[in-house]
Amino acid sequence: MCQLLGMNSNVPTDICFSFAGFRVRGGATDEHRDGWGIAFFEGRGVRVFLDPQPSIESPIAELVRSYPIRSLNVIAHIRKATQGTVTLDNTHPFQRELWGQYWIFAHNGNLADYTPAFNGRFLPVGNTDSESAFCDILQHLADAFPDGPPSASALHEALRRLAIRIGHHGPFNFLLSNGERLFAHCATRLAYIIRQAPFTVAHLSDEDLTVDFSQLTTPADRVAIIATTPLTDNEVWLTIAPGTLLSFRHGERESLGETATFARPGPTIA
Amino acid sequence: MCQLLGMNSNVPTDICFSFAGFRVRGGATDEHRDGWGIAFFEGRGVRVFLDPQPSIESPIAELVRSYPIRSLNVIAHIRKATQGTVTLDNTHPFQRELWGQYWIFAHNGNLADYTPAFNGRFLPVGNTDSESAFCDILQHLADAFPDGPPSASALHEALRRLAIRIGHHGPFNFLLSNGERLFAHCATRLAYIIRQAPFTVAHLSDEDLTVDFSQLTTPADRVAIIATTPLTDNEVWLTIAPGTLLSFRHGERESLGETATFARPGPTIA
Repeated sequence: MCQLLGMNSNVPTDICFSFAGFRVRGGATDEHRDGWGIAFFEGRGVRVFLDPQPSIESPIAELVRSYPIRSLNVIAHIRKATQGTVTLDNTHPFQRELWGQYWIFAHNGNLADYTPAFNGRFLPVGNTDSESAFCDILQHLADAFPDGPPSASALHEALRRLAIRIGHHGPFNFLLSNGERLFAHCATRLAYIIRQAPFTVAHLSDEDLTVDFSQLTTPADRVAIIATTPLTDNEVWLTIAPGTLLSFRHGERESLGETATFARPGPTIA
Repeated sequence: MCQLLGMNSNVPTDICFSFAGFRVRGGATDEHRDGWGIAFFEGRGVRVFLDPQPSIESPIAELVRSYPIRSLNVIAHIRKATQGTVTLDNTHPFQRELWGQYWIFAHNGNLADYTPAFNGRFLPVGNTDSESAFCDILQHLADAFPDGPPSASALHEALRRLAIRIGHHGPFNFLLSNGERLFAHCATRLAYIIRQAPFTVAHLSDEDLTVDFSQLTTPADRVAIIATTPLTDNEVWLTIAPGTLLSFRHGERESLGETATFARPGPTIA
């Protein structure tokens, strides 16, 4: 299994503090040594830093930790391989273009007996279940909305149904963004926090590092951080209920109707 | 106009030396201050480093210059904007996926009155002529070869025809790679060198830096370097004739039939 980190904010924000704690899970405080990656949206553009070596030993991770890139949407991933070789092509997050927007995806979980039928519009380059799921999602969005992006609620509903279908194959925690919104699907484990005024002091769980956000922010700033497990030990993180798809925009949760992706009582629907 | 740098080799090779000379053209020895980027293929994967700030001031460029990433195919670009804003989404090289392969593209030139008809399969995210040309090329390849990659000669012929068509709109020097081959199209200015045994000492034109390749190579190594203008001042670079599409594989030029992309005597064919 892997670890996910996401950020969605209403002002361009650097993720250096959260990344400092997240990064050490890649080989120091945790076992995720099979590569890492991080994607930063900036305007319509995106830059993705990928490294198949452990994040704790990566000079690229050191650059990302120390060079503040300000972004409204960030997705990061540290990998413990379950399927696929430890190579660059299997390193998350993955990137594609749909509707003239870049899309970024990272997955934590393991999908068994999952062989989606691809029509060629989006094809995996590597051999992970995760990249296949990403291509499956984008193919279905492209087919369902051939004329361009649908409404926010229609997009959310389509993603919710895809999360249900693909989630039948196994744990399917994921983060997905098109630069406008950050979608977070919890199948087994995902938590978030929204930092807003009054800002306080935060202390990392994985490293003895403290930041006083009140010194770095304005009262209007709002930042959502989503992570597999809480990154700080002195703040209240909200656990996302398994079987929930959340959408974040401008640093807050959007209300877009139905969010549940588990059909209760059991995962046996067709 | 911009500057291009490409590398194609038969063994994974780092481009630190060439990049050191290329990079200083981005704001120091030349005027290309509107961002830069570099893409490294590693196996089937690719990593792209992009920065909308001048390469000479970029901490990411400093990382790339000092951190040896070994690759068979590299494409780099430093930008002097002719069309499009100086933003991340307009920073070359551009990346897409076709046939389960990543494709990377960078352009030097300026295309006027160029508004390709897109069917939605590949759409520009930014607003440069260059990204439009890349999407135009990939759309036509996808339409012409829907079942997957064609033969090398069929691919080369398709690209040659596309270079002719798009080149009617203005200077269209480009580098394109799918990780297997590096295609280099010269419309106005592009040169290359193939380094192979016996290796010698090379000295950069743009910086007082020398490397003795005989100390770093084996006799079987072969590396092609392609650049807008020669990067070294003590080696013989070959000028690519304007109106030529070359294909490099395993560090050497491939013979794939017709390479001319200018219809002589004039650029007036339909």
